[in-house]
Amino acid sequence: MIASERGVRMINIAVLGYGIVGSGVVEVLKKNKEGIAKKAGKTIQVKYILDIRDFPDSPEKDLITKNPDDIFNDSDVSIVVETIGGIGIAYEFTKRALIQGKSVVTSNKELVATHGPELMRIAKEKGIHYKFEASVGGGIPIIKPLYECLSANEIISIAGILNGTTNYILTSMANENKDFETALKDAQSKGYAEANPSDDIEGKDSCRKIAILSSIAFGEYVDYREIPTEGITKITVEDLKLIESLNSKIKLIGFSKREKGKILAKVCPCVVNKSNALANVEDVFNAILVSGDSIGEVMFYGRGAGKFPTASAVVNDVIDVIKYSDWDDVQVWDVSSESNFIKPEESDAKYFVRIMVRSKEEAKKYIIERFGKVDVFEIAGYSNQLMFKTLIENEGEIIKKIQCLQEIGSVKRVLTSLRILE
Amino acid sequence: MIASERGVRMINIAVLGYGIVGSGVVEVLKKNKEGIAKKAGKTIQVKYILDIRDFPDSPEKDLITKNPDDIFNDSDVSIVVETIGGIGIAYEFTKRALIQGKSVVTSNKELVATHGPELMRIAKEKGIHYKFEASVGGGIPIIKPLYECLSANEIISIAGILNGTTNYILTSMANENKDFETALKDAQSKGYAEANPSDDIEGKDSCRKIAILSSIAFGEYVDYREIPTEGITKITVEDLKLIESLNSKIKLIGFSKREKGKILAKVCPCVVNKSNALANVEDVFNAILVSGDSIGEVMFYGRGAGKFPTASAVVNDVIDVIKYSDWDDVQVWDVSSESNFIKPEESDAKYFVRIMVRSKEEAKKYIIERFGKVDVFEIAGYSNQLMFKTLIENEGEIIKKIQCLQEIGSVKRVLTSLRILE
Repeated sequence: MIASERGVRMINIAVLGYGIVGSGVVEVLKKNKEGIAKKAGKTIQVKYILDIRDFPDSPEKDLITKNPDDIFNDSDVSIVVETIGGIGIAYEFTKRALIQGKSVVTSNKELVATHGPELMRIAKEKGIHYKFEASVGGGIPIIKPLYECLSANEIISIAGILNGTTNYILTSMANENKDFETALKDAQSKGYAEANPSDDIEGKDSCRKIAILSSIAFGEYVDYREIPTEGITKITVEDLKLIESLNSKIKLIGFSKREKGKILAKVCPCVVNKSNALANVEDVFNAILVSGDSIGEVMFYGRGAGKFPTASAVVNDVIDVIKYSDWDDVQVWDVSSESNFIKPEESDAKYFVRIMVRSKEEAKKYIIERFGKVDVFEIAGYSNQLMFKTLIENEGEIIKKIQCLQEIGSVKRVLTSLRILE
Repeated sequence: MIASERGVRMINIAVLGYGIVGSGVVEVLKKNKEGIAKKAGKTIQVKYILDIRDFPDSPEKDLITKNPDDIFNDSDVSIVVETIGGIGIAYEFTKRALIQGKSVVTSNKELVATHGPELMRIAKEKGIHYKFEASVGGGIPIIKPLYECLSANEIISIAGILNGTTNYILTSMANENKDFETALKDAQSKGYAEANPSDDIEGKDSCRKIAILSSIAFGEYVDYREIPTEGITKITVEDLKLIESLNSKIKLIGFSKREKGKILAKVCPCVVNKSNALANVEDVFNAILVSGDSIGEVMFYGRGAGKFPTASAVVNDVIDVIKYSDWDDVQVWDVSSESNFIKPEESDAKYFVRIMVRSKEEAKKYIIERFGKVDVFEIAGYSNQLMFKTLIENEGEIIKKIQCLQEIGSVKRVLTSLRILE
């Protein structure tokens, strides 16, 4: 906030986009007005709501405008909430607001993951804020704790269930024996999945989120476009049941860690042992497990989406912008000139493999020859299947070896190969 | 920090008490010196370590002093870390430091729960900090998130597994069939329980922690001495197994909520359904589930104790004191002139009850007459036992009715009565 605004008792904000999150923000500000004013030290007033649609029945209809200039030309508006989504007009408005010296608070993970470095740099130059707690984990406090509560630590790794839709689908496939398509339709009918669910089920949403978390944890921009990403469309009920019988679950995990001075990041369905707290995260819940060199492991858990949880995170950021108005230590993500990624193939991993065989004995012999001293198990109820866990070795090597399995006579087909979360 | 210290590149601190946590703080500051300096904006230098013991072999032996005046008379020391524990000399030193304008960071839950309001008031008057993230949940960020990440919410309730020792004992009783005494000895031999474990097993440690969390959440001092507290010494392996068969676990829970404008708080072993994330918190781990009116439920999970996790939280507070040196919005807990507690007996609850009977049929009839339409179950393997869950009703009434069970002819004995965490 600029110096002249100190001492002002009321802060005017504008909300861009009156969809689910935007309307939630307006409602939360209204419902908890007093408590919020006490915490922010100022009353927060929504002066404008920008949307191209009409809301003739909304109690806020007098605040709604279709003209962005109303907001940008009004110097009384010091904070802009961007809940439009996407990287088109949202990017343009955010940049414009920041250049004009208006702090911006957003729930827009795509924009942060794509243009975060530029937008943060502008905010820093202007001495204002660009905040995005709601972009990861919905209402779960994770961005601020990562920035501010683990400062005594070097962050070693992050692993998270970052997408509620896919976690709901995997949970209902595992617990209710629904196939993928049925579980997806069910999620859509409950409003957990969008009409076009590809961003969720193909892992893209999780990918942007792990990119944001990694950028914070490691202090440099992690470009989501470089993160190998695999969704859950190939997972079967059979896989889930089998993994369950091994005291584990299959979860769509976004993870990253520092290795050899670079960053390893990946999104893929993983086998997670039940002793890992992430395995117990069910339904639409999200959780992020952070490992630091002093703290060990801490986990942040809650609803990763939804109108009010997400609005809660947005409003909290607005309060922080007001409270810490002259705090200028905004983190900016440096963008490396060359790739800061280590390829997953250059790192070690462990896999679960299930195959359909022509000859059990020959296949077993081959597996032990190629994969080393692993235990190969038969599968109750499936006379022509085998499964095993690889040793920990170079992931590229493991993948090659699994591909080779396809080509030997004793093996009919590789049914499943899944990374095991260590 | 006082204004004259702005611009200083180095901050001198003193560590009072060179025990497990104190030495951990010194080690973490050393190990992550550069990263910490970057985050704090200043280099942190440990100038003194106060301890009455000698440490001739410590690499820090030159910093150790037995004379507190060395620290209090040195105006270069602007932050004091208190890791002595207890409410004796620790209280005296903390007060003295604050009065002299030195910010204090502590892991001392007993002191915060007992003298928090006074010490915070002094800190506020002096424009400095009294910070205590490490007092609850070890390294888990919970104090700062409660203060700063849920500001858009009215906090409805808090429930937590706040003591690692008792959670370890309950876990090993349930999973390894150890009786209480054996599990306790095991915990002691692993260093999880102290030689005198009464603060842990009688729930006192959890009580202080839920008092601190409640004070933050509800913005007024919650006196731990008024919180009804029951430990885990009466829990048997039989109870744990039986509850397990009901898809639940027994956990020592500290909980509190706002009710009728007052605060309800309690510490007791509770039946926790496995659908509740707290049920899956095992071994020495702690977790705190916070429920807010917008965010729904969020949980913070991690190691609730241990040298480095706790030191991590202390050092993070030290960094915050430096970063937010002129931030004067320190919360102070108001102390009500009259009790702000609602008695558990004035509130509603639900209980699990197990009884040994003389006559099943008569006992069943009596139970349904007195407790209403509840399902009374026989217990496989115990021909003379019955169990049931009460309806939700006034807790005072439930407790009275359970006492009455003892007195009727058809019932031999009440074996178990446990509150069910809703």
